[in-house]
Amino acid sequence: MSIEEAKRLAAFKAVDTFIQDNTIIGVGSGSTIVYAVERLAELKRTKNLNVVCVPTSFQARQLILSNDLKLGDLEQYPKLNCTIDGADEVDKNLVLIKGGGGCLLQEKIIAGYSEKLIIVADYNKDSQHLGDNYKKGIPIEVLPLAYKPIQMRIQEKYRGSATLRMSKMKAGPVITDNGNLILDWVFPTSETFNWDEVNKTIKMMPGVIETGLFINMAHAVFFGTKDGSVKEIYTK
Amino acid sequence: MSIEEAKRLAAFKAVDTFIQDNTIIGVGSGSTIVYAVERLAELKRTKNLNVVCVPTSFQARQLILSNDLKLGDLEQYPKLNCTIDGADEVDKNLVLIKGGGGCLLQEKIIAGYSEKLIIVADYNKDSQHLGDNYKKGIPIEVLPLAYKPIQMRIQEKYRGSATLRMSKMKAGPVITDNGNLILDWVFPTSETFNWDEVNKTIKMMPGVIETGLFINMAHAVFFGTKDGSVKEIYTK
Repeated sequence: MSIEEAKRLAAFKAVDTFIQDNTIIGVGSGSTIVYAVERLAELKRTKNLNVVCVPTSFQARQLILSNDLKLGDLEQYPKLNCTIDGADEVDKNLVLIKGGGGCLLQEKIIAGYSEKLIIVADYNKDSQHLGDNYKKGIPIEVLPLAYKPIQMRIQEKYRGSATLRMSKMKAGPVITDNGNLILDWVFPTSETFNWDEVNKTIKMMPGVIETGLFINMAHAVFFGTKDGSVKEIYTK
Repeated sequence: MSIEEAKRLAAFKAVDTFIQDNTIIGVGSGSTIVYAVERLAELKRTKNLNVVCVPTSFQARQLILSNDLKLGDLEQYPKLNCTIDGADEVDKNLVLIKGGGGCLLQEKIIAGYSEKLIIVADYNKDSQHLGDNYKKGIPIEVLPLAYKPIQMRIQEKYRGSATLRMSKMKAGPVITDNGNLILDWVFPTSETFNWDEVNKTIKMMPGVIETGLFINMAHAVFFGTKDGSVKEIYTK
């Protein structure tokens, strides 16, 4: 089974398991979410599913609109029932790395004010430890004027390398949907980190807007696997 | 002695005590900082003081330029020697409320990457407990799209009221120098808060960019007093 088919199956199953009628849902970003939105649109057409969709990015907003789903925001709906999103890596404790696509800030906000966060991903994202499979590091969204001292402080404190994400589509750095920069912190995999402590320490650094570490947030993860089955993992 | 004269004396004394030649300094925002910059300019003219000034706001940048001081930024100078800034309130443990002028984010960044933070204020800012004298609450800079759930979460967790700061100079809310909104959280003074815990909890809320609580940051505070003397308090 192709990786795309595996993602699609997992996304459909996640939507069918967790999305209830007349709820407010968060719509994540990335390649897997395209399939989740496809399923939402299908359920709207065939079963009259009525949900309000709150996007986590420019991409998510376009997906919601082009699929003729109802668009909402956190000002109208400050409490969401369920968010479906992807992840770049998931460890055995359901700690996530997110933000490879640069949307970590809005993704964490939407997930943070949802009752449940459901993750959909392909089997390549399933790891024992962070860094086993995903090598691009942990994205950290920072205020542009502060990127340099933050970069230095992270490297001094935790080693590894925190690199400013550069754009391939324009001269200069990638600018997030919120006008900030991203440091990709490739951490030393030889060390054992307490991710909760790391996440708090980095977010407390002045100028850090958000980190791509999602801890104690995922309620369940749906992995599309090679054989076409969907591996479901729930938080304990 | 007028309050302005008291501020001026304190600012001059702070500069004379802490600013050394050939250093990188952070320049705060607000009415008291005008006097600190006046003194820096005077020392440059009369004693050839050579410092690089890193601003904390649009206002600070204008002050630096109009006084013909050397302007720098955190990309060029990621480690500062000393920052001089004001405060809205200072408690007996040198916990500060800052951000009445809306510049808390850049102020915390500049202070956070400085070896020393020196606070200059008039005697009205000198309190035993936060809230004794300053009634406008603790400013919290938030991403615009997330202000509503943050407002609700702060009020649910800590009570009081977290109000969106509205502009008197345009229709709509105050927009910070970094494009964000400000919630002014007027906390219940009948309760005893652990400010370190409050600060960490609020900053960890997704969408919170920074808080106006400055804890374990101030190295010394210079209060201009009614009788013309300057009250100096140092951290223990």
